[in-house]
Amino acid sequence: METCSYEYTARIEVRYAETDQMGIVHHSVYAVWFEQARTEFFRTAGASYADMEAEGFACPVLELGVQYKAPTHYGEFVDIKTTLVKEDKLRYRFKYELSVEGKLCTVGTTLHCFTKAGRPTRELPAKIAVFFPADAK
Amino acid sequence: METCSYEYTARIEVRYAETDQMGIVHHSVYAVWFEQARTEFFRTAGASYADMEAEGFACPVLELGVQYKAPTHYGEFVDIKTTLVKEDKLRYRFKYELSVEGKLCTVGTTLHCFTKAGRPTRELPAKIAVFFPADAK
Amino acid sequence: METCSYEYTARIEVRYAETDQMGIVHHSVYAVWFEQARTEFFRTAGASYADMEAEGFACPVLELGVQYKAPTHYGEFVDIKTTLVKEDKLRYRFKYELSVEGKLCTVGTTLHCFTKAGRPTRELPAKIAVFFPADAK
Amino acid sequence: METCSYEYTARIEVRYAETDQMGIVHHSVYAVWFEQARTEFFRTAGASYADMEAEGFACPVLELGVQYKAPTHYGEFVDIKTTLVKEDKLRYRFKYELSVEGKLCTVGTTLHCFTKAGRPTRELPAKIAVFFPADAK
Repeated sequence: METCSYEYTARIEVRYAETDQMGIVHHSVYAVWFEQARTEFFRTAGASYADMEAEGFACPVLELGVQYKAPTHYGEFVDIKTTLVKEDKLRYRFKYELSVEGKLCTVGTTLHCFTKAGRPTRELPAKIAVFFPADAK
Repeated sequence: METCSYEYTARIEVRYAETDQMGIVHHSVYAVWFEQARTEFFRTAGASYADMEAEGFACPVLELGVQYKAPTHYGEFVDIKTTLVKEDKLRYRFKYELSVEGKLCTVGTTLHCFTKAGRPTRELPAKIAVFFPADAK
Repeated sequence: METCSYEYTARIEVRYAETDQMGIVHHSVYAVWFEQARTEFFRTAGASYADMEAEGFACPVLELGVQYKAPTHYGEFVDIKTTLVKEDKLRYRFKYELSVEGKLCTVGTTLHCFTKAGRPTRELPAKIAVFFPADAK
Repeated sequence: METCSYEYTARIEVRYAETDQMGIVHHSVYAVWFEQARTEFFRTAGASYADMEAEGFACPVLELGVQYKAPTHYGEFVDIKTTLVKEDKLRYRFKYELSVEGKLCTVGTTLHCFTKAGRPTRELPAKIAVFFPADAK
């Protein structure tokens, strides 16, 4: 497993609509936040996902895993530290560590492949490939 | 304004994820329910919206209006009485009356046009047109 | 691990709002469907979750896992076969098998504990406990 | 109708989950964005809504209206200019103008009252009242 040399921490403000009647953020929202963290990861790395889609790439989610350790609340800002590892020849795993004011609240991962024109590909968008030096050989 | 002779009442079970920290259904959810009511309106009229899209039709929302009279809650079933009127040559208005156990809780409307291949059209999908006899002359 | 003798298959109609620009149901929606499947599981077992909450019980999600095998689409009905096992003294795992016209598309699990008045409890709501005969001894 | 002397423009990045299979932001999402704009309006005015709720205030939505003029897309940032007027003795109206790179795409309003301990009140949270000088007399 090779680790991407780029990582990013996104900051998200909890939206009122994201709470439920337990008074906490609904557990389904975290997958949306993970995706927003990926969007910012790609964009700040110089490879916006919207551009990648325009070039025919997609990066579908194959698996999702979340462990809820402490709830988050309306009025809080959530920091999402996002890292990326190459899982095998075709698959990549994003890892997320969510914290509020430095206190870890949730961890999760999403497993992905890249596709081009709808088919799985080993080719990475060029601006992402540079962060995997071993592949660049 | 000509009224469509078909109307339909959809029944929706409130989902936990649709509540917010006030303990009621979040106000943004009603637009999703209206859309689900339209889906069932078209499907039960014999003109599934998925089929209409496959034929190149779309029915985008131009305007949305909602009046919240009483909240709805997890554990409730919501009945959505859905009617349709022709507003002018190109536009159609759906009207929604939502009630729980017969008690009116919310009313709303959405204004639409029909498009075919991305352009506004006066042509209606055939299975909807039959419900507007004046147009059928 | 003891298996609950009650199981239930919920049927959900895909909502337009649940799709994304890939033309498929967004991956975050499955957690909402799992929850709706639990709502129907409890309700049809005679133990509505709304009633359980009114008695002070809650059943928070500790972990979520989803494997996406094939996409689902607007216009489809999704069957969610839901089963429940006791994982250890305090934790219970729901398992979900989603299929469209008999074709398996997604599997997932959620891990839960029961709480009463906000604290983890080994006590089950009575109407659920009857489905775990070994515990009833 | 008295106008609040405070106004604010929030910037929101479109989330992938907010798109639908037409390739545009789903129309139900705008109500969530309006709410996020109100959150930022209150917070930047020095009166966070989370604090207001902690003091027993709420500001429920009585009516929602949206006019969709042009779609928004994943990859775009949306600016939401938010203003507030006093509608009558008990009701306040937020107005929203959404634009992408200066091009107006959607306008909307939400009508609200303030409640304290669950009942409508003419009392405004102090940090909001200062922006209505006529009331402050």
